[in-house]
Amino acid sequence: MKAYDVIIIGTGPAGLSAAIYTARAELNTLVLGKTENAQLWKAHAIENYFGVESMHGHDMLELGIKQAERFGADVIEAEVVSIKPKDKTFAVKTADEKEYGAKAVILATGMPIVLAGIKNEEKFTGKGVHYCVVCDGFFYKGKKLAVIGHSNFAAEEAIELLAYTKDITMISNDKEFDFSPEMKKDIEKHKIKLIKDAISSFEGTKTMEKLVTKEGKELKFDGVFMGLGTATAASFAKTFGIETKGKTIIIDREGKTNVPGIYAAGICTGAVSQVSVSVGEGCTAAMSVIKQLKDKKAYLDYGEKK
Amino acid sequence: MKAYDVIIIGTGPAGLSAAIYTARAELNTLVLGKTENAQLWKAHAIENYFGVESMHGHDMLELGIKQAERFGADVIEAEVVSIKPKDKTFAVKTADEKEYGAKAVILATGMPIVLAGIKNEEKFTGKGVHYCVVCDGFFYKGKKLAVIGHSNFAAEEAIELLAYTKDITMISNDKEFDFSPEMKKDIEKHKIKLIKDAISSFEGTKTMEKLVTKEGKELKFDGVFMGLGTATAASFAKTFGIETKGKTIIIDREGKTNVPGIYAAGICTGAVSQVSVSVGEGCTAAMSVIKQLKDKKAYLDYGEKK
Repeated sequence: MKAYDVIIIGTGPAGLSAAIYTARAELNTLVLGKTENAQLWKAHAIENYFGVESMHGHDMLELGIKQAERFGADVIEAEVVSIKPKDKTFAVKTADEKEYGAKAVILATGMPIVLAGIKNEEKFTGKGVHYCVVCDGFFYKGKKLAVIGHSNFAAEEAIELLAYTKDITMISNDKEFDFSPEMKKDIEKHKIKLIKDAISSFEGTKTMEKLVTKEGKELKFDGVFMGLGTATAASFAKTFGIETKGKTIIIDREGKTNVPGIYAAGICTGAVSQVSVSVGEGCTAAMSVIKQLKDKKAYLDYGEKK
Repeated sequence: MKAYDVIIIGTGPAGLSAAIYTARAELNTLVLGKTENAQLWKAHAIENYFGVESMHGHDMLELGIKQAERFGADVIEAEVVSIKPKDKTFAVKTADEKEYGAKAVILATGMPIVLAGIKNEEKFTGKGVHYCVVCDGFFYKGKKLAVIGHSNFAAEEAIELLAYTKDITMISNDKEFDFSPEMKKDIEKHKIKLIKDAISSFEGTKTMEKLVTKEGKELKFDGVFMGLGTATAASFAKTFGIETKGKTIIIDREGKTNVPGIYAAGICTGAVSQVSVSVGEGCTAAMSVIKQLKDKKAYLDYGEKK
């Protein structure tokens, strides 16, 4: 496991801005993310960002990566599927099943989780419908479980559930399964079942007892774990007990979450969805990480190359 | 008095970023400030700002002005000496004695006030040493007053004190007086005395009774108003009862102060002194102004030219 000072999850403007600062401060910096997932990637022309007359979002992200790398950051295109505490550090795992260690983590994962829009999802949350294997998997020893989701993130949730039970079904909810080769191998090896039904509701009396598909089919499960989309700050937040408000991470003015060593920046904190704001938040979180890891009361970056 | 929707005080990254957004939202926008006072002006090369590989601070500010103007903002090089409530709007006065009206004001004035470093300054604050003519001038009707300061801001304070007394002395505290032609004329017309002594301490028993100069001279005054440097957000804040913490303005995550219609962004709010952060704060404050003036719950700028 390669060890870094700080791992930044997300290669959008918040993550890359943070990386520029931590790398300049000579912290060993790794940025993990899928750049094409950044909202900015598709922006035709950014013309509301101070100091840049007009630039395609795509070009801006590529320039940002170049800037971070220039100061020594490693930027790896990879989907993060889990973050776990490990001794007093953090272990970050990607979809290709690599693991990286860090003393501090900055969550800059962009958009908050999208609910599945399945009827009774909120009603049964915590009562058969769950969002965090680490938190709630324990209650389902030897039970029959479903994971709703089609991505590497969902696959990772399913694989983690193997610690509690062998009877696991992944339901893609009308999407195509999209796994990395490593994940696919693991799914097959552990005989995790795959079905593609679209789910329209959760049903039950006090707790969730069954899923009803669009075609009216009833699927009985003891519990369901939601693993929609890619992993977001909010889903990582659940693992660590990070305080959230709705689907966004709560941070203070210094970019700190309530969990020591975990910081957040950008849209995942509920910030306005603008490059300007994300970049500022990335810088603020980076400053806090620098102060933490260098044990300094204050830090200032004078802008010029060292 | 020319009326605007929003006046932004400060032509640094926070102010110009805000202007880009309010102008794009088709708010009548005026930016007032001395660009060469912006900290960024002297920065040799900014290389820690996402999306810009390397740029002189000077060039970045000029580009920022061009961007704001492109979307319709007026940017005027002028020193703001006062902001006053006027009906339900704000009247902003510059050193050349022009006045502009606005429905909302964004304070982006940069560095907080510097204390004079005069002995007993804090001890006698509110007890003969004051920072706000509008707040405390009333208590000195017909008394003998001093204003410490050498700039247009100090001159404006002295001129405002004329409403209460005619016996006013400006003390430059070892600096050269530096007034606009209009201010100079007013100072002469109202026979405001000018002396250049360096002040080393305030003395008195319960309240301030005299100033002691570096040479040991004693100058008796009933009260002293501090008008050091140029006007800052903190000095404007005192006029309106805006909550401050030390010398910085308190804002919420949306850039709002506790006074409706007044917003703040950048270093004057205690934010980290970095272009990235100031630009983000400017955007955030602008978004709040847009929501207020357009009476919208949400506003998003999609980045491309309208």
